[in-house]
Amino acid sequence: MSAIRRLLLIENHLSSQFPNAPQEKGLDDFRKLESKVNHNVLAKHYFDDFYEANLYTRKIIDESPLFTHQESLGSSVEDYRGKVVEQLKCIYSKFRMSYEKDLNDPIYKCGPIYGMAEYDQSLSTRMIVHIILYTDTIQNLGTGKHRELIDRAYALKDYGSFGMTELGHGSDVGRLETTATYNPKTGGFTLNSPTATSAKWWIGAIANTANMSVIFARLIVDNADKGIQVFAVPIRDYETHDTLPGVVLGDCGKKISHDGIDNGFILFKNYEIGYDCLLDKFSQIKNGKFKSTIKNKEKRLGIMMAGLIRGRFCAVSGSEINTRSCLTIAIRYGALRKQFGNPKEESILLYQTHNCRLVTGLSKAVAMRCASKVISNMYKAVKPISDLNPECDELNEFHSVLSSLKCVCAWYGIAVSQECREACGGHGVSEYSSLGRHRGYVDVHATWEGDNAVLGQQTGKYILKILQKSFKGQKFTSPTLSFLKIDFQEVKSFKSLFTSREEFENEKCIIALLEHRVNFLTHTSVIKLQESSMAYSDMTTAWNNSQVFYIQDLSKSFAELIMAREFIKLSDNIYKDCKETGMIIKKLFYLYSADRILNSISLYLESAITHVQEKIIRDTFIKLASELAPASLQIVDALAASDKILGSVIGSSDGQAYSRMINAVESEPKCYYKPKWLHLIKDIRGS
Amino acid sequence: MSAIRRLLLIENHLSSQFPNAPQEKGLDDFRKLESKVNHNVLAKHYFDDFYEANLYTRKIIDESPLFTHQESLGSSVEDYRGKVVEQLKCIYSKFRMSYEKDLNDPIYKCGPIYGMAEYDQSLSTRMIVHIILYTDTIQNLGTGKHRELIDRAYALKDYGSFGMTELGHGSDVGRLETTATYNPKTGGFTLNSPTATSAKWWIGAIANTANMSVIFARLIVDNADKGIQVFAVPIRDYETHDTLPGVVLGDCGKKISHDGIDNGFILFKNYEIGYDCLLDKFSQIKNGKFKSTIKNKEKRLGIMMAGLIRGRFCAVSGSEINTRSCLTIAIRYGALRKQFGNPKEESILLYQTHNCRLVTGLSKAVAMRCASKVISNMYKAVKPISDLNPECDELNEFHSVLSSLKCVCAWYGIAVSQECREACGGHGVSEYSSLGRHRGYVDVHATWEGDNAVLGQQTGKYILKILQKSFKGQKFTSPTLSFLKIDFQEVKSFKSLFTSREEFENEKCIIALLEHRVNFLTHTSVIKLQESSMAYSDMTTAWNNSQVFYIQDLSKSFAELIMAREFIKLSDNIYKDCKETGMIIKKLFYLYSADRILNSISLYLESAITHVQEKIIRDTFIKLASELAPASLQIVDALAASDKILGSVIGSSDGQAYSRMINAVESEPKCYYKPKWLHLIKDIRGS
Ligand SMILES: Cc1cc2nc3c(=O)[nH]c(=O)nc-3n(C[C@H](O)[C@H](O)[C@H](O)COP(=O)(O)OP(=O)(O)OC[C@H]3O[C@@H](n4cnc5c(N)ncnc54)[C@H](O)[C@@H]3O)c2cc1C
Ligand SMILES: Cc1cc2nc3c(=O)[nH]c(=O)nc-3n(C[C@H](O)[C@H](O)[C@H](O)COP(=O)(O)OP(=O)(O)OC[C@H]3O[C@@H](n4cnc5c(N)ncnc54)[C@H](O)[C@@H]3O)c2cc1C
Repeated sequence: MSAIRRLLLIENHLSSQFPNAPQEKGLDDFRKLESKVNHNVLAKHYFDDFYEANLYTRKIIDESPLFTHQESLGSSVEDYRGKVVEQLKCIYSKFRMSYEKDLNDPIYKCGPIYGMAEYDQSLSTRMIVHIILYTDTIQNLGTGKHRELIDRAYALKDYGSFGMTELGHGSDVGRLETTATYNPKTGGFTLNSPTATSAKWWIGAIANTANMSVIFARLIVDNADKGIQVFAVPIRDYETHDTLPGVVLGDCGKKISHDGIDNGFILFKNYEIGYDCLLDKFSQIKNGKFKSTIKNKEKRLGIMMAGLIRGRFCAVSGSEINTRSCLTIAIRYGALRKQFGNPKEESILLYQTHNCRLVTGLSKAVAMRCASKVISNMYKAVKPISDLNPECDELNEFHSVLSSLKCVCAWYGIAVSQECREACGGHGVSEYSSLGRHRGYVDVHATWEGDNAVLGQQTGKYILKILQKSFKGQKFTSPTLSFLKIDFQEVKSFKSLFTSREEFENEKCIIALLEHRVNFLTHTSVIKLQESSMAYSDMTTAWNNSQVFYIQDLSKSFAELIMAREFIKLSDNIYKDCKETGMIIKKLFYLYSADRILNSISLYLESAITHVQEKIIRDTFIKLASELAPASLQIVDALAASDKILGSVIGSSDGQAYSRMINAVESEPKCYYKPKWLHLIKDIRGS
Repeated sequence: MSAIRRLLLIENHLSSQFPNAPQEKGLDDFRKLESKVNHNVLAKHYFDDFYEANLYTRKIIDESPLFTHQESLGSSVEDYRGKVVEQLKCIYSKFRMSYEKDLNDPIYKCGPIYGMAEYDQSLSTRMIVHIILYTDTIQNLGTGKHRELIDRAYALKDYGSFGMTELGHGSDVGRLETTATYNPKTGGFTLNSPTATSAKWWIGAIANTANMSVIFARLIVDNADKGIQVFAVPIRDYETHDTLPGVVLGDCGKKISHDGIDNGFILFKNYEIGYDCLLDKFSQIKNGKFKSTIKNKEKRLGIMMAGLIRGRFCAVSGSEINTRSCLTIAIRYGALRKQFGNPKEESILLYQTHNCRLVTGLSKAVAMRCASKVISNMYKAVKPISDLNPECDELNEFHSVLSSLKCVCAWYGIAVSQECREACGGHGVSEYSSLGRHRGYVDVHATWEGDNAVLGQQTGKYILKILQKSFKGQKFTSPTLSFLKIDFQEVKSFKSLFTSREEFENEKCIIALLEHRVNFLTHTSVIKLQESSMAYSDMTTAWNNSQVFYIQDLSKSFAELIMAREFIKLSDNIYKDCKETGMIIKKLFYLYSADRILNSISLYLESAITHVQEKIIRDTFIKLASELAPASLQIVDALAASDKILGSVIGSSDGQAYSRMINAVESEPKCYYKPKWLHLIKDIRGS
């Protein structure tokens, strides 16, 4: 905090114009409503893989004066970005990353990113761009000679960026326009941006920071288009930080969030690069001829994008973090805020509409954390296999799970964070509540690392292929889909038999329902596709016209099944350590499931359940939301970072929302202030 | 625009680093796909009451150099607010408002506000706060002696504000803490803010602008609490603009949107005001005794808030405008943006997922405009009746219609604007797309002018009361509810008989379905309430526990029925003037209805329709969204304000998204720029 700001703050404290606030009741009373959540047990199982790294990152942030949200709120974009660079250094330097460590533990790198995202997603994104998108691309596509680049990246000697998207093309990577023309004389390449739309766009760290970039470009050899290849190229002079000749770097300008990242554009004008810039693990130029070990063009393109794998993982974690932050604020505020009630004023969180919004939101946040766990575990298992064979079944399966989880988590986050904003009423609109900031973070997850509407199709394609293979009796490895039924008649004959809340609240019963949904949508999607392929001349159009109600829903239902399975594991593991906490997380799982089943109710009513059973689910849903309202505060308390990290005056752990709000407002230099345009007020009179 | 900015802009044009963009194809091809929308006919019927005023306001804005979004984007909050005051004057002065005009035509005042909101909701809100919330409160609650205040308000001699909400209480107006203590000696009152939470909070125009405020305070007479009354009081010195002694005025600080409004707080410290400050139409103090013509305390409180009626109307219009702005941008961008497609690249708007998002969104926007029309027409009819008898049935009915429409429109707007953001991919995240701005505007409609979750309950209460009266055979006037059925058996026996798309696409068939939903939810809500009242000791708790799936849904379904009825009228009226345009609007109505019915599908499946019929509705929905995609561009074109007013580089009418984006980015002073913290980059190396 600047000295002036600090002074103002102190002065304002002393000279506050407000009546002395009596010590607010805060959250103590509400906390007493439910005391059975063991915070430690819950946090350990919840954060799991990230537990240690996250504790450590939180500690760094809590102890360093570099981190103050209040200051960022008041500073210019330029200063803010500089601050983020300092913060990045502060945390990164404590983790001593290296290529070796990454090979040993593929989750290690993501640990500090998780903690950074709790504080500020601009900060974590800066890290992701460099150490995941840039570095992973080289790790995945480079060869021995690129090892130095990798080491430089881990040592932060180079600061890298990921140059894929262009002004004119994002999702459709196959149509990027930047060219890399092979020059047989020099053996190198010339990069060019032939059109305005070919400008690389949105590239994180380009406007101010990066000296390196991995550039996705169309390789031209001997006038022939060989498709997209990736090149690791310097873009700024290492010493002077000047943009290199032949390169243009600029700032993409104002964004609706994430001001701390310097997204920019890149243009190339006959920019010459050496042969070794080509990341040549799978494709090379030998004797002037292009060669690739991956024959299928589409597959090759997919492999080029492998740098996005852990990027997507971070989008899932990011969604969970942003959502949990919003919930921490809204649930705490919902507990301390009282409005109406007769005769005593009631915490708004105890209203049915309110807990149905927020406690259900919390169940989704936990499901999102489960999504991250699934990805972690699958990635650890798949990485060694796919390193040997990038076309293996396991990677395809992982890719389809990851894609659908990324979509669903981003969409959950967007919906829940909006609920949280609304749940805080007017104070949710104040910047000091931080809800706008966290909601702004989560929004972009639907777009980057693969746009949701596009990504969902990939999962759908995978599942339908697996069904096709099953039909044909072909061999394949896909444990996540082992429940898939070949016979649609059998699917349609499924009936869930629960007759009461007690029978519904049963893991087997719920998983059967969720598996049924995937089975049902798989078969109806196939039928829809067949219909469409008769109605339209080409398969692409048929595919595009089988999305709504079918393939998109299939992808989502698959993701939710995966999350539900992991949710059960989580609750079982917690139960082993603390029965009472485990039971609460189980209840949260039932709430999550009830909500998800009601969300597809017409599918279920078609054959699997009756209207009477639907009523049971509804009642269960409402009762669980209400019963869990007291526990919800304990849960967010157990998982929340410090007040300093969360940075919300209405969501702080002591529940002193009003005095903190007054404080924040009175600390602004212009709180009591006459604007310079007072003459305008006289001006408008009598007009 | 400042001279420097303008210069920079020109310079950048000349020195652009980008390859010359060939003239972009823009939107012409897509526009040719559908040519049957008569823009004039559509616009006239759509804007209707507001048509002339809106054209006029648009013209003022288009012609005045005071209005430039680009400048506001770059300016400080202080400058921005000053600019908004100038803009307000510029438009307001052209309309020559007066009390007489308002009495003659109760919609007149809202006309320029509509046009202002198209440009910037900070601007329209500033107008609403003064000319609606402040002035209407005096008009509704004042007497002859307050006439001067009214005239001063219309002449902008006074600038007013609306002081209802406090830091501690918003929705629960009955629990406000500010006190107005009657002083028998002077015959006046003393205003006090006894606690920190009693500070008036969020009050628009308080931080910088207003010299007057209507203050909601608890009247204390002879130590007895007489409930909330409203007082029109000066707060700043008219000449010096200094805050008056006994008053504290400050700024509520940073918000997540609407920076152009100076929301602030007010504290009173033994602030003495005269008797005439009491707005005493319904309540007076005579011989030291409090008297009121409205005996029922709850009703009295309701009447105090009558200033919010047209405020709510503006929230409905505002939601529609914001949503339509987002759709104009997203639909134009969806038409020009091409991605994938085989062999030719395809406009993304032609993808099924995309048109199901956006064209359905457009159908909602039209429904929202219909909501405004309903309110306009009802208000015109009700006003003269309620002026005579503020406790009349007509006002109650109007209030319930208004409340539910306000909730539904705000929520539509929030959902659709988010879809639009996502539909524009990465470019939707850029400030220059303006989607963030418009989405930010719509968000707050869920909260102000009565929080949605609270307001919805009022409509529910009204409908249930009407049913109760019907049961008892009591007389009441409620034409909007004339279809209500007393017999639940009869409701449950309703079956819709359509067997094809053609039969579904029929106004009678659809209205019957929508009426059925209201009937069904009315009866199930009554049953739920009965159950709850047995489960809980008091009626308030029973009520609060009958919201989700019942009373909240009832309120929404009622609003959607009202909107649907008006939608039909609109399409019929257009049809009379132009058959082809009318048919397109009818199709949009079918799409809207299909979407809304699918949204309550389990209710319908319970008895009214079969799964086969559900499939027909789904197919109809998908086909309509696709068939209407070409027309959707024509529709937004017909209704859109100028590019200057819309202010979006990706949504401009010429479809030159890319060159405009480049232009916007290169016009920023810091586009090509080295930040002052370059040393930090060297700093992080090797850390
Ligand atoms: C803050 C931010 C940071 C970023 N950082 C980077 C970075 O560092 N490096 C980088 O390379 N990129 C970056 N990106 C770009 C990001 O990866 C792209 O925005 C994303 O891939 C989506 O592409 P697009 O924006 O071109 O959208 P488009 O592909 O144009 O999609 C637009 C819309 O069309 C829809 N759509 C497209 N195709 C189809 C289809 N076949 N069927 C149905 N619907 C379809 C999409 O769902 C979307 O709604 C960043 C973006 C943002 C906003
Ligand atoms: C930008 C802005 C401008 C404003 N301008 C003005 C102005 O000029 N003048 C003015 O007087 N006010 C103004 N307001 C205040 C606004 O009217 C209030 O924010 C609004 O009335 C809601 O009240 P609250 O914020 O106290 O929310 P609360 O009433 O505290 O509600 C918080 C949450 O609790 C829920 N809740 C509350 N009661 C219940 C219940 N019984 N059942 C279920 N849920 C419940 C609500 O749904 C909401 O989600 C403004 C607000 C904003 C954000």
